[in-house]
Amino acid sequence: MKIRPLHDRVIVKRLEAEEKTASGIVLPGNAAEKPDMGLVEAVGAGKIQDNGSVRPMSLKVGDKVIFGKYSGQSVKVDGEELLVMREEDVMGVVEG
Amino acid sequence: MKIRPLHDRVIVKRLEAEEKTASGIVLPGNAAEKPDMGLVEAVGAGKIQDNGSVRPMSLKVGDKVIFGKYSGQSVKVDGEELLVMREEDVMGVVEG
Amino acid sequence: MKIRPLHDRVIVKRLEAEEKTASGIVLPGNAAEKPDMGLVEAVGAGKIQDNGSVRPMSLKVGDKVIFGKYSGQSVKVDGEELLVMREEDVMGVVEG
Amino acid sequence: MKIRPLHDRVIVKRLEAEEKTASGIVLPGNAAEKPDMGLVEAVGAGKIQDNGSVRPMSLKVGDKVIFGKYSGQSVKVDGEELLVMREEDVMGVVEG
Amino acid sequence: MKIRPLHDRVIVKRLEAEEKTASGIVLPGNAAEKPDMGLVEAVGAGKIQDNGSVRPMSLKVGDKVIFGKYSGQSVKVDGEELLVMREEDVMGVVEG
Amino acid sequence: MKIRPLHDRVIVKRLEAEEKTASGIVLPGNAAEKPDMGLVEAVGAGKIQDNGSVRPMSLKVGDKVIFGKYSGQSVKVDGEELLVMREEDVMGVVEG
Amino acid sequence: MKIRPLHDRVIVKRLEAEEKTASGIVLPGNAAEKPDMGLVEAVGAGKIQDNGSVRPMSLKVGDKVIFGKYSGQSVKVDGEELLVMREEDVMGVVEG
Repeated sequence: MKIRPLHDRVIVKRLEAEEKTASGIVLPGNAAEKPDMGLVEAVGAGKIQDNGSVRPMSLKVGDKVIFGKYSGQSVKVDGEELLVMREEDVMGVVEG
Repeated sequence: MKIRPLHDRVIVKRLEAEEKTASGIVLPGNAAEKPDMGLVEAVGAGKIQDNGSVRPMSLKVGDKVIFGKYSGQSVKVDGEELLVMREEDVMGVVEG
Repeated sequence: MKIRPLHDRVIVKRLEAEEKTASGIVLPGNAAEKPDMGLVEAVGAGKIQDNGSVRPMSLKVGDKVIFGKYSGQSVKVDGEELLVMREEDVMGVVEG
Repeated sequence: MKIRPLHDRVIVKRLEAEEKTASGIVLPGNAAEKPDMGLVEAVGAGKIQDNGSVRPMSLKVGDKVIFGKYSGQSVKVDGEELLVMREEDVMGVVEG
Repeated sequence: MKIRPLHDRVIVKRLEAEEKTASGIVLPGNAAEKPDMGLVEAVGAGKIQDNGSVRPMSLKVGDKVIFGKYSGQSVKVDGEELLVMREEDVMGVVEG
Repeated sequence: MKIRPLHDRVIVKRLEAEEKTASGIVLPGNAAEKPDMGLVEAVGAGKIQDNGSVRPMSLKVGDKVIFGKYSGQSVKVDGEELLVMREEDVMGVVEG
Repeated sequence: MKIRPLHDRVIVKRLEAEEKTASGIVLPGNAAEKPDMGLVEAVGAGKIQDNGSVRPMSLKVGDKVIFGKYSGQSVKVDGEELLVMREEDVMGVVEG
């Protein structure tokens, strides 16, 4: 059982505190929205354009991403809490 | 008697609590808008573009979808409560 | 005497309560805007695009449509109250 | 002495109460903006597009039109009060 | 000494009360913004489009124009008060 | 040491009161934003368009320009206060 | 361990006070948003356009940039505080 995100949305699983610490990246945040970290579990097919073509996605399954703490909407699948958000809400990919 | 949605709208029948539980997906929600689940009963022909062509729809009849709890407008057809919403308001399709 | 709507507007005659009940469709509404039902009496020629072409209309005269209760502006023609609204404000067509 | 409206604007002369009554059309209005009736006295050349071409107008001089009561700006030419508004503010043309 | 307006801006010299009266046009205005009258003293080269082409201007030097009383920004050149505004803010050209 | 403005931004050095007076142009302003005068010290390469091409700039180094008093952001380079603003915020070029 | 910014975002390391002073550039700011200075550490691949092509970036790694003090979101990577912002938020590049 899984969720296939529509258009330019992605499914992200928030990482636990220990996983974030192990990555060497801390997310102090500023202003109103603190960044958070997670793993991409599914990506949409891309946004359907006016001419019927599809704008490709930049993210792929497995990417470790940083996003605003309050981005997306949470949903529980088989007991696992996931986030549905737009690729636009993802700030960057953690590498290395 | 049925409703054919215009342009990029879809008709969705909200699923009952027991059906949602059976799916293994729980919808706790966050922020102001909690997600909900339903079945697509009808889809529009797509949005008519400026050049007269039609942007195709991603959803099809029978899709089990997740959407914001307050998305769409309710209408009762032959005693059955349905929701009319835009495809854009649908976050994803439940598979499997 | 009649009104020819401009661009992407349509003229709609609101249906009486008994006609709505007979259709088997009830319009309970939710949120701020309750849906209502009516008959399309006239449709505009379509929106004139930047290149001079005209984007075709989806609705046609005689369509039984659902729209937001506060959509459009009312006007009385030969004693009959009509609504002028944009096709975009129409949610769907009742069939069957 | 007259005013040539720029781009997609039109000049409209509001009809007197007796003329409106004679037309068989009453304008009760709803919501915040009540519709009113008038005669088109001049139309702009159309909106200049980005590529230099001009988007044609739908209205022509002599059209009897319905528009929002507070649409446009009034100006007195040789003692006659006129309205300058955009074609977009015109809801429809009275025929017959 | 003069000012060359940039892009789609025009320089307008507001007409004195006696000149306006002589024209046979009175500007009573309505709503929040009353119209005013002036002479076009300079026009920009037009708006530069994304592809590098320039969208031509409709107004030319010498046009007597009507515009919203609070449109534009005033600037004094060699003791003469002028207004800098966008062509879009001009409602029409007085002819005859 | 200097600043190269990005995209459609320009660097402007505000003129002193005596220089403005000498130009014969006074800037009384109206509404909320009073115009000011300055010299263009640097111009960006132009805005990068969606297709990768660059929209050319209208301003060039040395232009004496008029702009809104509160336009741009101030920055001190080698003791000299400069303004960074978008070309769109510049109303016109003083000639002569 | 590093962060690859998505689309048109860049990663910037804020410069310390002494580095800024050494550059001969002071950032007094005005209005609500004071400018700040930093070094570009990473740039996104560019914004994916509707047709699938990528709009190129103007900034490159190593650029010394000026940006609004409250632009971007802070994130700590291996103990180093960085900012993630859009190229659009960068006002200019400090040159030698």
